[in-house]
Amino acid sequence: MDRPLRAAVAPPGTAMGVLRPLDLRAVSITDGFWADRLQVNRERTLAHGAQQLEASGAIGNLRRAATAQGVPVGGYRGGHDDAGVTFPFLDSDVYKWLEAVGWELGRAPDALLRAMADEVIDLIERAQAKDGYLGSYVTLLGLHPFHDLAWGHELYCVGHLAQAAIAWSRSLGDDRLLRVAGRAVARIEAELGEGGRDGVDGHPQIEMALVELYRLTGEMHYLAFAERQIGLRGHGHLGRGRFGAGYWQDLLPVREAPTVSGHAVRQVYLDAGAVDVATETGDRVLLDAVIRRWDEMRARRTHLTGALGSRHAGEAFGDAWELPPDRAYAETCAAIGSVMLAWRLLLATGEERFADAIERALYNAVLPGISPDGTAFFYVNPLLVRAGGTGYAGGEGQGRQAWYACACCPPNLMRTFSSLEGLVATTDDAGIRIHQLAAAVIDADLPVGPVRLRLATAYPTDGRLEVTVQRTPVASWALSVRMPAWCVDAAVSVDGEPLDVGPLDGRLTLERAWTPGARIVVDLAMPARLTVPDPRIDAVRGCVAVERGPLVYCVEQADLPGDVALPDVRLHVATPLALDPTERRLGLPVIFAEGVVRPGPSAGWPYGAGPTDTPSGERPVKLRFVPYLAWANREPGAMRVWVPFA
Amino acid sequence: MDRPLRAAVAPPGTAMGVLRPLDLRAVSITDGFWADRLQVNRERTLAHGAQQLEASGAIGNLRRAATAQGVPVGGYRGGHDDAGVTFPFLDSDVYKWLEAVGWELGRAPDALLRAMADEVIDLIERAQAKDGYLGSYVTLLGLHPFHDLAWGHELYCVGHLAQAAIAWSRSLGDDRLLRVAGRAVARIEAELGEGGRDGVDGHPQIEMALVELYRLTGEMHYLAFAERQIGLRGHGHLGRGRFGAGYWQDLLPVREAPTVSGHAVRQVYLDAGAVDVATETGDRVLLDAVIRRWDEMRARRTHLTGALGSRHAGEAFGDAWELPPDRAYAETCAAIGSVMLAWRLLLATGEERFADAIERALYNAVLPGISPDGTAFFYVNPLLVRAGGTGYAGGEGQGRQAWYACACCPPNLMRTFSSLEGLVATTDDAGIRIHQLAAAVIDADLPVGPVRLRLATAYPTDGRLEVTVQRTPVASWALSVRMPAWCVDAAVSVDGEPLDVGPLDGRLTLERAWTPGARIVVDLAMPARLTVPDPRIDAVRGCVAVERGPLVYCVEQADLPGDVALPDVRLHVATPLALDPTERRLGLPVIFAEGVVRPGPSAGWPYGAGPTDTPSGERPVKLRFVPYLAWANREPGAMRVWVPFA
Repeated sequence: MDRPLRAAVAPPGTAMGVLRPLDLRAVSITDGFWADRLQVNRERTLAHGAQQLEASGAIGNLRRAATAQGVPVGGYRGGHDDAGVTFPFLDSDVYKWLEAVGWELGRAPDALLRAMADEVIDLIERAQAKDGYLGSYVTLLGLHPFHDLAWGHELYCVGHLAQAAIAWSRSLGDDRLLRVAGRAVARIEAELGEGGRDGVDGHPQIEMALVELYRLTGEMHYLAFAERQIGLRGHGHLGRGRFGAGYWQDLLPVREAPTVSGHAVRQVYLDAGAVDVATETGDRVLLDAVIRRWDEMRARRTHLTGALGSRHAGEAFGDAWELPPDRAYAETCAAIGSVMLAWRLLLATGEERFADAIERALYNAVLPGISPDGTAFFYVNPLLVRAGGTGYAGGEGQGRQAWYACACCPPNLMRTFSSLEGLVATTDDAGIRIHQLAAAVIDADLPVGPVRLRLATAYPTDGRLEVTVQRTPVASWALSVRMPAWCVDAAVSVDGEPLDVGPLDGRLTLERAWTPGARIVVDLAMPARLTVPDPRIDAVRGCVAVERGPLVYCVEQADLPGDVALPDVRLHVATPLALDPTERRLGLPVIFAEGVVRPGPSAGWPYGAGPTDTPSGERPVKLRFVPYLAWANREPGAMRVWVPFA
Repeated sequence: MDRPLRAAVAPPGTAMGVLRPLDLRAVSITDGFWADRLQVNRERTLAHGAQQLEASGAIGNLRRAATAQGVPVGGYRGGHDDAGVTFPFLDSDVYKWLEAVGWELGRAPDALLRAMADEVIDLIERAQAKDGYLGSYVTLLGLHPFHDLAWGHELYCVGHLAQAAIAWSRSLGDDRLLRVAGRAVARIEAELGEGGRDGVDGHPQIEMALVELYRLTGEMHYLAFAERQIGLRGHGHLGRGRFGAGYWQDLLPVREAPTVSGHAVRQVYLDAGAVDVATETGDRVLLDAVIRRWDEMRARRTHLTGALGSRHAGEAFGDAWELPPDRAYAETCAAIGSVMLAWRLLLATGEERFADAIERALYNAVLPGISPDGTAFFYVNPLLVRAGGTGYAGGEGQGRQAWYACACCPPNLMRTFSSLEGLVATTDDAGIRIHQLAAAVIDADLPVGPVRLRLATAYPTDGRLEVTVQRTPVASWALSVRMPAWCVDAAVSVDGEPLDVGPLDGRLTLERAWTPGARIVVDLAMPARLTVPDPRIDAVRGCVAVERGPLVYCVEQADLPGDVALPDVRLHVATPLALDPTERRLGLPVIFAEGVVRPGPSAGWPYGAGPTDTPSGERPVKLRFVPYLAWANREPGAMRVWVPFA
């Protein structure tokens, strides 16, 4: 390649792995569902983020650190100050926003965004100490650097800085942040690198950044330090903390831990970094350990939406089968982290089940974290909210919030959307692999020559994908399209000729000598369907969910007649589901189901010998299911993904 | 009365209320289930507590404060020091233990307990500052008194001191602690009393203690200060904290809040104090507000076991119907607090439903918090633990712990058992009311003259109660026995003559001129029964529980064949339950049920179109249910109260 690969994750050809990411310039989502989402992110969310970063004090911290000239001046604002809680990691919010802006300016220039970013980059450059230390919390409060690895988030913040730096370097050839990040990492390595003391950050993150710095610069010490961090974790360096050593994955070595544990974001960030290290060092044992954990997590600790986290206390995974819909933690950042992890596993293994996981998480665990207008967020994404429900939004509030005291999620969404085009397709030795269905143009430099594809689709509104080969070499190559795991019936044609694709086992691969204009149509049957949970998931026993294609649906109190309470509703599973021909949400169909209202017994001790009398007042009700990603955009109220069946 | 009433709660005849507590000297549990429990408490648990209070540093804090002579010397130990968390309330653990010892020494002397207590009392006397301030956390660390009302627990600790002082005064006529408590409260009143600044403690507790100090001493200012605390709460004096103002019941005034909210222990302690204030001031609005909250809590926020608390985060009540068996917080202290609250409501209203609640909580939410040998505890009492389950015991441990970093529960159990005899019976204008069934001797001074009753029963092993009138005046009086809410069939006889008692509506009342030797037999039919939950309790949908009499049962993995996993077990509801004639636990029957093993599907994505194939390998299994209060006394393992039915 004649230019550095523009991608968030860019393993070189020498890395262990099956798939190669495409350059972000080579994939362009042109219209449809995702184009709308990316446009909102670019035009609304990034500006909203800049305002909120100023209002929250995150930019102010850097500004004060920049003018402090190394003298502690106090005045660090940590998000929740009024509640006596100070989060030391607000710098990272700024860095994540900067990363998003870096990718975004690479997609197309924007003078205003550029000016805002330049101002912030200038602050960051000046906030860095002469010895390379960067961290406004420690600087402003005059604390000892790296004395609170467990809670201080110092490496975590520098890792996010490095990822922003990588975006600006790869996207714009702008290495200002890269120089800052390089010196900040050098300061950390002097303290904790080979020959320094043994210690890891309480919040894994820097491992991914270090490997990517290595990939960008070729400097081996970054990879060595990442490997050192992975190797040191799980040996008790962090202590028990207030949530136990499992909280920060410090109970068992990363190569040994059989299951995910503790804080969900930390776990998936750690495992994502472990995959990065494993693919660069050829460490199959490490990779297999991550895959083993992923398989167990997928089978027993993942919500239907693809979301992760079952406990608010410790923001943690639960035990196996512990998947409460109401107290699902389902942090937006954990879903984003799961996409980062699955993307790395997809590149490493080529197995489309990881792309399936990305799809499910993006639609049902990442997107629900942001309002359609891109300026209101959820940190926690429950699958069940009761009337007057508490504890899922910020503080004592209900519904989406403009920002959070702990604001990790909003800028994490921004950088995810700004680099999302990179998730659509990859190449392998045989040709092009399409992983996500979106209306897009894809350019790929295959070994046999350059290829251009145009993907036309209204997905996920319907399941039809038309791929037109617009440019192709004469030699044959393989076009591969993921056949989603949710799909049980698909039709495929090439240039109008139906093709017998046999059983769907993850992907359709068509290898041949293509000619320009060739047209492949994949038609995924996408009926609304009922989904039942594994009987061991206690919290949703006796319930069903409605899905269609990749989308999980939900029913909201706002769509019920005024005299019907959601807890009294039961779904008639025998009656077919039907699409509403008249109404859509975010362009997506609304689904009708038949239900029954079965009023609960009157107040009193709620446990007894059981219903001896038939419930009175039972009556039918029409239920309207909306995509879960579109919930909570009216007045706050009850909502259910899992509905008891009659 | 010629001597002060020996009771934890002793409202005078002038207080609003229906029932009068008996003096602790007038009730003696002679043998059977509760006699065993009280003996273990006296002979094992109190000594264990003394050791642990020394080992935890709680007594050491007071010792250092006693020798510090007002100069801050540091060295406060706060339980979780290694985890960077310091609990400021360790003094209260000592006070609760002292309260227990006070009641216990009133039951019978014990030289060793007496010597240990005297040493601690001496430390407390010397740890008090010249101005009356008492609190080792503030003293040792040189903090400003009353500057952190939200988290400092300063009033909370003094409240517990006062309750210990009341026990020693009423039980032993020993007023050493009462003098200390009086000066400590005076110091608080100077700061926060009428004319001082407005503020309440983040943890309600002192309200109960203040009212009882008023009852003991007759000093009105105690009652006024209690009323002031109740009145100030709910007006935002505590701020949002990290869990929101609802956490410490500061969102709405105590007279207005429609439902319980936030930290469960704080709520029930607050409401117990509110009942005390209401009964002394005749504040019907306040009492009704507490009863309204109690009714709603009972109908929608109480676990089958009577336990309270649905969220680990904030140790809090959940939303209505949010009652997860696995993440039930069900803190032992919350159950104890619920007994304290229900006892006060029983005295105030005379309604036996409050005694029903006491019974359920004592057997199924208080007792499960302590091992049969009295030296290992649960802080959290889940109704479902999965294999390898985490998060219900201390730290990353499983099973009962000898002590806790936050050790509120163990000494709370001690004082509960040491004064438990007081809960058995009361008097009213008509006669004697028996609320709890236990083998006991009861003396009561009725207006018509002295009465002695002997209660013989093997309850809760069986449901037969024989009451013998051993002493009675000639004039008629009423003997009332609570007919438990769980009971649907009872036989009653007087001197062998069967009595038609009609429908059971809470209690049996027999008013007549009794003669010595009269014998009343109440036979409560006590078949094992299946209990189903209200359909709105999502977390246990499709499940049943086994109960017998007042006892909730559970099934433990340890009682299943080695090749049967508890999550695969279903209960056959059509097959009758049967008592095991061969085995008992703590003297209580084991119950057999028929079940079926239905192995779950193999690993993979756990959501799908549902069971299209019949599960293979389905086979019958005999299920053994043990009283929930006796669980977790073998190796740690899975346990369920709610079992899915076939």
